[in-house]
Amino acid sequence: MDENFLLGTETAQELYHNHAAKMPIIDYHCHLIPQMVADDYKFRSITELWLGGDHYKWRAMRTNGVDERYCTRKDTSDWEKFQKWAETVPYTMRNPLYHWTHLELKTAFGITKLLSPETAQDIYDECNEKLKSPEFSARNLMRHYNVEAVCTTDDPIDSLEYHIRTRESGFEVKMLPTWRPDKAMAVEDVAGFRDYMEKLSAVSGVTISGYNDMVDALQKRHDFFAENGCKLSDHGIEEFYAADYTDAEIKAIFNKVYGGASLTQEEIVKFKSAMLVLFGEMDYEKGWAQQFHYGAIRNNNTKMFKQLGVDTGFDSIGEFATAKAMSKFLDTLNSRDKLTKTILYNLNPCANEVIATMLGNFQDGTIPGKIQFGSGWWFLDQKDGMQKQMNALSVLGLLSRFVGMLTDSRSLLSYPRHEYFRRTLCNLYGTDVENGELPNDRAFLGQTIENISYYNAKEYFGF
Amino acid sequence: MDENFLLGTETAQELYHNHAAKMPIIDYHCHLIPQMVADDYKFRSITELWLGGDHYKWRAMRTNGVDERYCTRKDTSDWEKFQKWAETVPYTMRNPLYHWTHLELKTAFGITKLLSPETAQDIYDECNEKLKSPEFSARNLMRHYNVEAVCTTDDPIDSLEYHIRTRESGFEVKMLPTWRPDKAMAVEDVAGFRDYMEKLSAVSGVTISGYNDMVDALQKRHDFFAENGCKLSDHGIEEFYAADYTDAEIKAIFNKVYGGASLTQEEIVKFKSAMLVLFGEMDYEKGWAQQFHYGAIRNNNTKMFKQLGVDTGFDSIGEFATAKAMSKFLDTLNSRDKLTKTILYNLNPCANEVIATMLGNFQDGTIPGKIQFGSGWWFLDQKDGMQKQMNALSVLGLLSRFVGMLTDSRSLLSYPRHEYFRRTLCNLYGTDVENGELPNDRAFLGQTIENISYYNAKEYFGF
Amino acid sequence: MDENFLLGTETAQELYHNHAAKMPIIDYHCHLIPQMVADDYKFRSITELWLGGDHYKWRAMRTNGVDERYCTRKDTSDWEKFQKWAETVPYTMRNPLYHWTHLELKTAFGITKLLSPETAQDIYDECNEKLKSPEFSARNLMRHYNVEAVCTTDDPIDSLEYHIRTRESGFEVKMLPTWRPDKAMAVEDVAGFRDYMEKLSAVSGVTISGYNDMVDALQKRHDFFAENGCKLSDHGIEEFYAADYTDAEIKAIFNKVYGGASLTQEEIVKFKSAMLVLFGEMDYEKGWAQQFHYGAIRNNNTKMFKQLGVDTGFDSIGEFATAKAMSKFLDTLNSRDKLTKTILYNLNPCANEVIATMLGNFQDGTIPGKIQFGSGWWFLDQKDGMQKQMNALSVLGLLSRFVGMLTDSRSLLSYPRHEYFRRTLCNLYGTDVENGELPNDRAFLGQTIENISYYNAKEYFGF
Repeated sequence: MDENFLLGTETAQELYHNHAAKMPIIDYHCHLIPQMVADDYKFRSITELWLGGDHYKWRAMRTNGVDERYCTRKDTSDWEKFQKWAETVPYTMRNPLYHWTHLELKTAFGITKLLSPETAQDIYDECNEKLKSPEFSARNLMRHYNVEAVCTTDDPIDSLEYHIRTRESGFEVKMLPTWRPDKAMAVEDVAGFRDYMEKLSAVSGVTISGYNDMVDALQKRHDFFAENGCKLSDHGIEEFYAADYTDAEIKAIFNKVYGGASLTQEEIVKFKSAMLVLFGEMDYEKGWAQQFHYGAIRNNNTKMFKQLGVDTGFDSIGEFATAKAMSKFLDTLNSRDKLTKTILYNLNPCANEVIATMLGNFQDGTIPGKIQFGSGWWFLDQKDGMQKQMNALSVLGLLSRFVGMLTDSRSLLSYPRHEYFRRTLCNLYGTDVENGELPNDRAFLGQTIENISYYNAKEYFGF
Repeated sequence: MDENFLLGTETAQELYHNHAAKMPIIDYHCHLIPQMVADDYKFRSITELWLGGDHYKWRAMRTNGVDERYCTRKDTSDWEKFQKWAETVPYTMRNPLYHWTHLELKTAFGITKLLSPETAQDIYDECNEKLKSPEFSARNLMRHYNVEAVCTTDDPIDSLEYHIRTRESGFEVKMLPTWRPDKAMAVEDVAGFRDYMEKLSAVSGVTISGYNDMVDALQKRHDFFAENGCKLSDHGIEEFYAADYTDAEIKAIFNKVYGGASLTQEEIVKFKSAMLVLFGEMDYEKGWAQQFHYGAIRNNNTKMFKQLGVDTGFDSIGEFATAKAMSKFLDTLNSRDKLTKTILYNLNPCANEVIATMLGNFQDGTIPGKIQFGSGWWFLDQKDGMQKQMNALSVLGLLSRFVGMLTDSRSLLSYPRHEYFRRTLCNLYGTDVENGELPNDRAFLGQTIENISYYNAKEYFGF
Repeated sequence: MDENFLLGTETAQELYHNHAAKMPIIDYHCHLIPQMVADDYKFRSITELWLGGDHYKWRAMRTNGVDERYCTRKDTSDWEKFQKWAETVPYTMRNPLYHWTHLELKTAFGITKLLSPETAQDIYDECNEKLKSPEFSARNLMRHYNVEAVCTTDDPIDSLEYHIRTRESGFEVKMLPTWRPDKAMAVEDVAGFRDYMEKLSAVSGVTISGYNDMVDALQKRHDFFAENGCKLSDHGIEEFYAADYTDAEIKAIFNKVYGGASLTQEEIVKFKSAMLVLFGEMDYEKGWAQQFHYGAIRNNNTKMFKQLGVDTGFDSIGEFATAKAMSKFLDTLNSRDKLTKTILYNLNPCANEVIATMLGNFQDGTIPGKIQFGSGWWFLDQKDGMQKQMNALSVLGLLSRFVGMLTDSRSLLSYPRHEYFRRTLCNLYGTDVENGELPNDRAFLGQTIENISYYNAKEYFGF
């Protein structure tokens, strides 16, 4: 992993070092904990930073035969957990964790040793020592990685207090909220939905007695997010919902679930269909970009779900045939002249070509790349997944107009993924040039690399 | 894009230059406008030729932020449209349009400059000047590209007057019709179907009062197509239809829709299932090859569909699980000893392996490669798509028996796609040889390349 | 195909020759005919050995235009059949058959000539001559290929007499049975199921008058298999079944079908769902590994099925969205703390990422790689398919914990597929090392290669 890591040609190297590397980072979709930035949090150990919430690592450890105690339980020490991770690392060769791990050690801590049982103690000590220094606070890590802006992922009922506090502190890195209203359409969970409505009512000051009240309350929160710099929404959905429905039906469905009754599958789909359109229209009015992350099947392991809850490493890639619903949903908004900028992220790589061709149906010439194919997401957020996404976008759309990479991460150490992405990107262009498939026009290609690394996102989102 | 473009090894270069390049073109599936050939049409400008109907280019322009006025509207000039396309071209790097564009400039006009805003005026002027010369008439373009035969795509009610006129003119390139009876099974559109029946009745001279009359009328047209040299049919279907049905049901369904009533989804599928079998049997009797293009979802953008109609760049790749229906349909014909030569084209590359293994179920040893996996189609008609199709066919069937490339194009400038295909083909074999995965038997490999480029198709279709 | 066949880098060569090549073979899933090993069978000709039951070759021959007489019929001679195969072989270039054929000629017979019409007679004679020698008996072929253990595929009603006879003969290669109870859940075939129950009753000594009796009978056979060294089960299913059901329902369904009545689709799925769980629990109690081969659509050609029966080359890859059912099935066992070691094999490569991420949901840290992604199966059992499987497993799981290759073959000449696999494996690691994507830690990588080739399987299955 030297300076030319992943850069297989001279052209790729030149494009990376002279263009990609110097661009700031716009991390327009992540799961950072805003309070950590507000508080300028300092980590007690590399274990907290690395293994405190990283379900990718837990999955690898479990696969490697490591007991759950060393993953998520409290009865093992930081060192014991780290040791088990260090044992696992050599077994992750060919998995992106191997590269992430060493890129993070190198770029954050300046450590170029490979992590293994032999080096575990030294690396543990060195990291923990460095973490004590002010350089390793949350904000300084962001500065270190040349981050210009981050967009967190937030519930409509969130007070955004940490975003406000951070902004008011004068921190030069923008931390903006993202509108993620999944719970407002999660009517399959009756008790959860009713509870959510109560909180929504409280935070918005709107008494909710019917569907229109809920819409009013959500609209207030949407406005509040906009006031606090929000530029994007995000939706985590299994698949797209585009059933036909009437206003009367949606109101009746709301009343039914709000009254505590369970809905039929058909009612659930109608309600979600209506909400997606409602949110799409709200976003259009604000000029936001809407994001859709679809295709995961979650919480597959009931036993562990009961012990650990969500986002603990028991999710996987689903199989959905959702192209027609996706098309119908986008067409509904487009027919009303209310289709805003949109980013589609799929989890099953089988849908790469479906999405890459879906974009073109709704590009309308108003801005370049109005409808975007989101960068390789979650399980696909690695070299192979990124390459497939970029290749599909290239041959079926315009890679040059791509808004590029995001970390989607909870960790302040994940910024090297932008480096990883940019190296992969430069390698694709470099290979094509050296194969004679692209002209050796360094100025244009250099600009293209800078655009995909930075300028396209900056312009697209309006930062 | 020099003479060894896409040819990464010496073996590939030798196979291409000594074998592939000299083969004539049999373009056995295209959408040429027969009247253009009959009239030996001359184009008024490169804009007409390139941007008059090419929805691939319109999609790229819309994605690049170009207003619809410059794509399809009449209120912009040829030069303005061309200029917008020239602006877009550099942004298409890594998209096949970039290669198509420059291959067409080079092979048709001898222009090796790259198209961009800087070169737009020169190239525009040079092309338009050349288009005035007789060398650039429709027929001379076909001669220029060493075309031996083309098969257009025609409706059963077509008079074939332009095919007849062309043939009678003594034009040495064969232009044969292809039987594409999609409208005869489009019973989901009641008014359209009734209107079509009226026209079918008129052109066939058969009074249609029931299902059997329609079959008689279609059979007359099928015979007429055969008399005019037709060797292939083609069917554009979303997915395969293989519902069970009885003759009585089909007759009743026909009467219902012919009487002006809408059909249920089940009735529609039954009717389509019956028609696919009927057409398959007709083709078998004539010894034609039947083609199936499946998997597109069309006209996704209702707003633009209302403005511009079909085939204007708003179609994309669908998701269908149609393997069992495909199998059942083929099995139905096979069980009746009426399965003719068949070519299956998929639009979603996820189905590559499904089709490549489906072939083998119905290969019966009567002729080599009786059931064919069609070349990368539409969105897949590019290097990556072609390679995946050929690799799947290679490992799961016999690439050596492949009937190869077709343009599927409306444009007289699309013949370089055969060159593109042949280069890609030679590159696959060349790489394998130089990796030691194939023997360096140039004679056999050269023959194989010639077969896939030309002889296989010639023999398979019986030209 | 020299000694560095498929080994594109020096690292790959070193890993293969110094590590992979010397490992014994554990062929933990195959379809060898146990009697052949018990009898130490000798083949009358290369035709019997190669073309007696190999539907891969028959498919290729049919595709090449060879009449069925030369594939499966009795009215052609061994030499005629061989001749037709030799004619076909050059046309299989790029298909794995081309490599299998020559690897088998080389490793079994020491023949390095390429098979073609010109060499057919010589090769035929030489092979047949050698087959007369004792070196080419079934057991000696297994010794020749350094086979340590094989697991055949057996029906619960099988007497295992040949396994017992082989073991008692002192043959040093372990031949163990595998529990494949497909027929015990094939309730869609009423007559077949009733017939099977009768045989099951006879062999187990349990009078079957209800569902519980069937379970008792199966349990006795399961115990009997265990006594005879069985370590694995295997299930051939179209897709996963995970319907909800009650014990009362299953008993009623059993009574219905056992009484001779046809079941509804819903009843069939419920019954299969129950049986999968039942078998999973039995395997868990024994500590066996359970295998699932899913995704084929079989016997697509009714005409040939009537003539030739099953497994004659008329099967292909299906399209199933079974991720949720797979998850629910595994979760059901896991929730009962009865999920045993499990290997999932898919036939459609589109499911690679689905499975590779499904594993992680149920890895529980008890042993490394408890849930396995099975090696490229059937149509995917070739370089491209293997690479895709290993790449998906690498980036989404831990390749290092993979139990590796199996032949899945009926043929005693298929052992070179392990060589093919190991070369492909070493090539993947070697390429990564030489690209700078993996550290050049030969000791660790060498151990990893040995593990995937041999030790992982040995430990996982407990041989």
